[in-house]
Amino acid sequence: MIKDVSNNTNSIPSPLDRVRERLSIIKVGGKIVEEPQSLKQLLGDFSKIEGYKVLVHGGGRSATAIAAKLGIESKMVNGRRITDKEMLKVVTMVYAGLVNKQIVAGLQALGINALGLTGADLNYMRSEKRPVKDVDYGFVGDVKEVNATLLADFISKGVVPVLAPLTHDKTGNLLNTNADTIAGEAAKALAGHFEVTLIYCFEKKGVLMDENNDESVISNLTPSLFEQYVTEGVITGGMIPKLENSFEALNAGVKRVVITRADSLQANNGTSITL
Amino acid sequence: MIKDVSNNTNSIPSPLDRVRERLSIIKVGGKIVEEPQSLKQLLGDFSKIEGYKVLVHGGGRSATAIAAKLGIESKMVNGRRITDKEMLKVVTMVYAGLVNKQIVAGLQALGINALGLTGADLNYMRSEKRPVKDVDYGFVGDVKEVNATLLADFISKGVVPVLAPLTHDKTGNLLNTNADTIAGEAAKALAGHFEVTLIYCFEKKGVLMDENNDESVISNLTPSLFEQYVTEGVITGGMIPKLENSFEALNAGVKRVVITRADSLQANNGTSITL
Repeated sequence: MIKDVSNNTNSIPSPLDRVRERLSIIKVGGKIVEEPQSLKQLLGDFSKIEGYKVLVHGGGRSATAIAAKLGIESKMVNGRRITDKEMLKVVTMVYAGLVNKQIVAGLQALGINALGLTGADLNYMRSEKRPVKDVDYGFVGDVKEVNATLLADFISKGVVPVLAPLTHDKTGNLLNTNADTIAGEAAKALAGHFEVTLIYCFEKKGVLMDENNDESVISNLTPSLFEQYVTEGVITGGMIPKLENSFEALNAGVKRVVITRADSLQANNGTSITL
Repeated sequence: MIKDVSNNTNSIPSPLDRVRERLSIIKVGGKIVEEPQSLKQLLGDFSKIEGYKVLVHGGGRSATAIAAKLGIESKMVNGRRITDKEMLKVVTMVYAGLVNKQIVAGLQALGINALGLTGADLNYMRSEKRPVKDVDYGFVGDVKEVNATLLADFISKGVVPVLAPLTHDKTGNLLNTNADTIAGEAAKALAGHFEVTLIYCFEKKGVLMDENNDESVISNLTPSLFEQYVTEGVITGGMIPKLENSFEALNAGVKRVVITRADSLQANNGTSITL
């Protein structure tokens, strides 16, 4: 259970709901934020999105590359990074330093008042070290508290938070936290303050009917359609948990989840997921 | 000339001056922030300082060490780092990532609401790339604008800004900026809002009468005493520009500059410099 340390206005339908302002939370990862040319394109596209917005970024490829140069091996289990003490230093450098600040400086140049944050900054997102079960993920954090009021105050003043995939445990430890998770938790917490659209950018144009046909994007998904496609074997593998997380966000008050490709941010033509 | 982009209340003596609240700006560098044990001690001492406060940190030793591991040579001229494109990435990782976020997480654990910032974050400190004269310092920034109102608003709300030695040029480039300079510029800009004490921590207990006697700390320095000591050859070398910068800060409205050792922060027994 995630505790929202701000007032939870989400559980009580309010007459103000109809006039809540729109907020787009965009998660980008992979090569897009790590190569100068694609980053420039992304920041340009992001700057054109209307209304309030938040950017959440990854940086795993750079972390792996820099770790390798430093002689530190990257170990992955189920697609998740094992974060020992030395790897924590690397991801802190790469996520909170290199990637985050290049994005912040790039957005400032476009007239966007960006503020880079880890969960430790202003204690906006607190986590706890993941308990060791089958796998010891090391310094990896599961989110426990999000200060939504703090984020909402910044956003309402026109600040664009740029969230690095790092949290802290409030006892002095930074913890590596998946960027999809950061985006999802921020979206759920902010759903009490804004009409939130959560946009996950990945390498495909959307959720595909046929994995061999990049143009076969499913434009709309609902829980019943999702169940049908899973039963029929249309949606398989890693897309299933991704979509389950999306429905969880919708159930927690997020208005819409979109799965798309970063270069389609403007075109608005990925897979739109609603209840 | 540094432009303070907030209202310059400093030039107009105000009846409120007598009740301005105290602000301590503490600059720490070197080993202190880069070794776990001394960092822990520092953060403990810092947390006990009463009143509003700001922490400014360096991180040069770690930058040099990590650059070396990455096969990047550190070039220094007159004690200043030459920052080429690759070195800029290293200092961005080390200053804004590793050192800054470890400090922020450490302070949060002590109940201090820290916020790590580079000049790019919220555009609080803008600089321009240093013009090439005798030396091409590369991506090094000379400070041009400080948003003192922004910093003062955070500080008044109990937030403790933790300033990394990086600025930006508002056209997308991060720029390496000496931590002493960041501290001095922040102090001068904030002198219009608070009664500022600027504390430079270095490896000696203070300015020494006899460089071979670590206990020979000059407890008070004024401009006339400074001139006398320079004439007599008591104060020499790199201490002269450091003190000249201190007097410049005092002339710009900073109340007091202290040069001391980090482990003497509590004892308040370094060299106190006033007009």
